[in-house]
Formats: sequence, structure tokens, C-alpha cells
Amino acid sequence: MKELMVGEIAEFSKTFTEKDVYLFAGVTGDFNPVHIDEHYAQKSVFRARVVHGMLTAALISAVLGNKLPGPGAIYVKQDIKYLAPVYIGDTVTARVEIEEIIYDRNRVRLITRCFKDDGTMVLDGEAIVIPGQ
Amino acid sequence: MKELMVGEIAEFSKTFTEKDVYLFAGVTGDFNPVHIDEHYAQKSVFRARVVHGMLTAALISAVLGNKLPGPGAIYVKQDIKYLAPVYIGDTVTARVEIEEIIYDRNRVRLITRCFKDDGTMVLDGEAIVIPGQ
Amino acid sequence: MKELMVGEIAEFSKTFTEKDVYLFAGVTGDFNPVHIDEHYAQKSVFRARVVHGMLTAALISAVLGNKLPGPGAIYVKQDIKYLAPVYIGDTVTARVEIEEIIYDRNRVRLITRCFKDDGTMVLDGEAIVIPGQ
Amino acid sequence: MKELMVGEIAEFSKTFTEKDVYLFAGVTGDFNPVHIDEHYAQKSVFRARVVHGMLTAALISAVLGNKLPGPGAIYVKQDIKYLAPVYIGDTVTARVEIEEIIYDRNRVRLITRCFKDDGTMVLDGEAIVIPGQ
Repeated sequence: MKELMVGEIAEFSKTFTEKDVYLFAGVTGDFNPVHIDEHYAQKSVFRARVVHGMLTAALISAVLGNKLPGPGAIYVKQDIKYLAPVYIGDTVTARVEIEEIIYDRNRVRLITRCFKDDGTMVLDGEAIVIPGQ
Repeated sequence: MKELMVGEIAEFSKTFTEKDVYLFAGVTGDFNPVHIDEHYAQKSVFRARVVHGMLTAALISAVLGNKLPGPGAIYVKQDIKYLAPVYIGDTVTARVEIEEIIYDRNRVRLITRCFKDDGTMVLDGEAIVIPGQ
Repeated sequence: MKELMVGEIAEFSKTFTEKDVYLFAGVTGDFNPVHIDEHYAQKSVFRARVVHGMLTAALISAVLGNKLPGPGAIYVKQDIKYLAPVYIGDTVTARVEIEEIIYDRNRVRLITRCFKDDGTMVLDGEAIVIPGQ
Repeated sequence: MKELMVGEIAEFSKTFTEKDVYLFAGVTGDFNPVHIDEHYAQKSVFRARVVHGMLTAALISAVLGNKLPGPGAIYVKQDIKYLAPVYIGDTVTARVEIEEIIYDRNRVRLITRCFKDDGTMVLDGEAIVIPGQ
């Protein structure tokens, strides 16, 4: 395992497409009409179909598993607050930052946030993971 | 909106396939080798590829969006503790139960848990949602 | 099994995307050019690619299997009349209504219809199912 | 349009995989547990996950749209009787046969049936289509 340090940051960005949303619905079974029914969504508070919150949140998992702490990381805990809607076509950046390294229990606590390109924070949260060996 | 009641329960079950895991990896970008590298996974603590924690967690989103509180539900908050690994081929049941109805803020707090067929709780958590109209 | 009643109604809506049509073609093998060849389709009576009739019809199956009569329902019979084309981008609502409960044979007969947002009925039919236990 | 004749037959066969069933569920929203929950299915009358009836039926659509009457065919009517379950791994052959050519209305009536390899008829029905030009 590479040496981890408090304050270390990693990011991953993705532009969400309609296809992403539909595949995510297909794999998870989450057919909430705010995601897959444009007519319903237009009449909702969102005014258009939105990306599943869990799909946005999964970008955090991607950073944790690919970059920081990286391959082999095991999720222990994830707290998520959804702050603003993400629309089809939006580009979202998930950013994780090491907040604490719990050496005696081999765990890492990270601040986990997602932002849109205009800087809007769409998701705020915290993760605890066991780093890969 | 149908009347919601504290104690109301809804469930959704799915047998996770390799395809689910691969599509989830493809859509989210989470290519942690514990999910998609059988060779790596066999040498890990898991001994085989495991389902993404966020994919298991997304079954909760499916229950919230399809059943309870149902279509139009908007996620506000989701806390997740991962308790045990889910393997490809495992059948997981997400169960949500209304714990509190916060009338003045139009929110519902739910206990959100996932179980394997043998009764093992693999995920424990709590959600807050705004019910659909 | 929950108690079923004549006149009970359930619905499911989805906005059909190009991806839906292409995945459906891929899984079923139905590569009729009216669905997947825009050039051909523009010169056809439809003037653009249309959604597979069977894909629209499958929304009925989704309502039967998810909602009414719900999980475990087994299809016995489905009659379908296609009344109008469904285009990529159209939102379709499948509506099923219990027309008859055949107690001695444990079967339910349902009116099954699909509508576009403007109210156009695109599919009319009837299903007979054995409800889940 | 090639000349059509009463008695003409065309077929299309496919071995259904778990992936087919899961993609079909994902596109249609039909997450009936008899298709995607192995644990549930084992306790059902089927004893294992079965292929969506509408997915089997869609093979008929594939024959109509690819072969007989062929590209450009437009569905007018499809009646389906489900006679026996189709399991993941089963190979199904859809066979359509022209029963009547309705010249004055430019329509073709076909017998539409699906068989398993052992000869079991799993689906019986009838279609009316407008042949492509």
C-alpha cells in the first residue's frame, strides 16, 4: 500500500447521459418516474429528468476504488446528503479528501463531495474505508 | 399522495449477476479490482469478486422510488453501513421501514437494510426522503 | 396474496429512448429497419424510427409483474392491438385494470392499454394472469 | 415487396441467457421476481428463474420484421397464449406461418408459435401485420 496522508485529494468527473440513467435504472430496478418519465419529471419540482442520486454517489465509490485510497479499498460506511439535483447532460466531479487515518484499525475517513461544473455542491458526505493491501 | 404510516414496510429483491456488476462498473466508472478482476479478488480477503456496495445500496433507492414512499420520492439523505460482502449470484432483499413522518417539513425517515437469503444483514442504514406528491 | 378487486387500476410510465430501442433489438433480434434504420424509417409511413410494438407492450408486463396483480404474477394470455406508432422520445403510460376475477380458476382478466401523453391510445388489449401467491 | 404465399414459413431461434433476461428487465421495467430473484423463483411453481413471456414473444416480432413478411412489416395485432415456462438456457424457436393474405386491406394473418428444442410448444398465437413495401 502506498503511504496515505491526511489532506490528500483525488477526483473523478463524468458527464451523465440519458443512457447512464437508463442503464442504472435497468440494473438497480429504480424506475422512479423522476428519472425515466420526462412528462412526469417536467411537472415535478425538477422540471426535467434527473440523474439517480445513487448514481451520482457512485462516482465517489469510483474515486475510492480507483484512486484514493485506490484498488482493493473496501467500503465500511458512507453518509450522503443530497443538496441539489443533477440533470442529464450535467458533468459531475466527485472529490474525496482524506480527513483521518485510523492506524490501529486500518481505516481511513474521507470527506466525499460532488460538484457540478458551475461549482454547485450536489452531494456532501463522508466515507470510511479499509485501504487495499 | 397515499397516506403513509410509521411501521410501513416495503421490499425489493434481486439476484445479482456478473452482468449487473459489469454494467454498474461501466456506468459509474468504479473499476475496483475486487469487483471486476477475479484473479485479484481471489487473493483478496473476499476470495471472489463482490458486488459493488453502492449497487446493493441502490436497491434501497429502488424500493423508495417504486414502492415506499413510491414514485416521485426525492432523496435527501442516505447513511449506509456495509456489514458483509455480497457475491455475484447472491440474492439480496432491500427492506425499508418508515420510522418517522416529519409532517411539518414533509419528510419521511426510513430504516433501510439489505439482507441475503440466509438472513445475513449486509447493509444497515437510514434514509430521509421527500415523498412524491 | 392481497385482495384484488374488479376496477382496480395500476400504471407505469416510461419515456422511450433510442438506447431502449437498440437494447431491445439486441436482446430480441428484431432488427426491423423501421426501428433501427433512420434512413429507411424516414422514407416509411412513419417518417422516423418507431419503438418496437412489443417493447411498448412489455410495459404492460411490467405493471402486471410489479404492481397489479404484482410480484409472482404469471402470464396466461395477452391480446394486443397496435393502434398508433410510438416514437423515440415519446412517454408511454401502460394502464391495466382488473375486469374480472375468475375465482374458481385463480385467474384475473385485465384490460391493458397504453397511452401517449397527449391521450392517444397506442395499444389496446386484454391479459389473463395467475396472481402470485 | 416479394410475393407472399399462404403456407410460407419462417423461423428464428435463440438460446436465452441470464443477460438477456436482465437486460429485458432493465429496458422494460419488469422486475417480477420470477425473472430476477432466484430465491423467490425456486420457491415458486417454476422452481427457477424464467424468461419473461414478452421476451419469448418478441422472437415472433423478430421473425416478422426480419424474414416474413420481412423488413418494414408493421404490427397490427398479436394474440399470445403462454403454454409453458421458458428457463434461462433454453433455446426457443419462433415459427410464423402465413395463414391468410387479405389483399384488399394489404394485411397478412400469420400463425405464430414458439417451441423449445424438445418440441414443447411454449407459446401459441396469431399475428396480423401490414407487409413492408
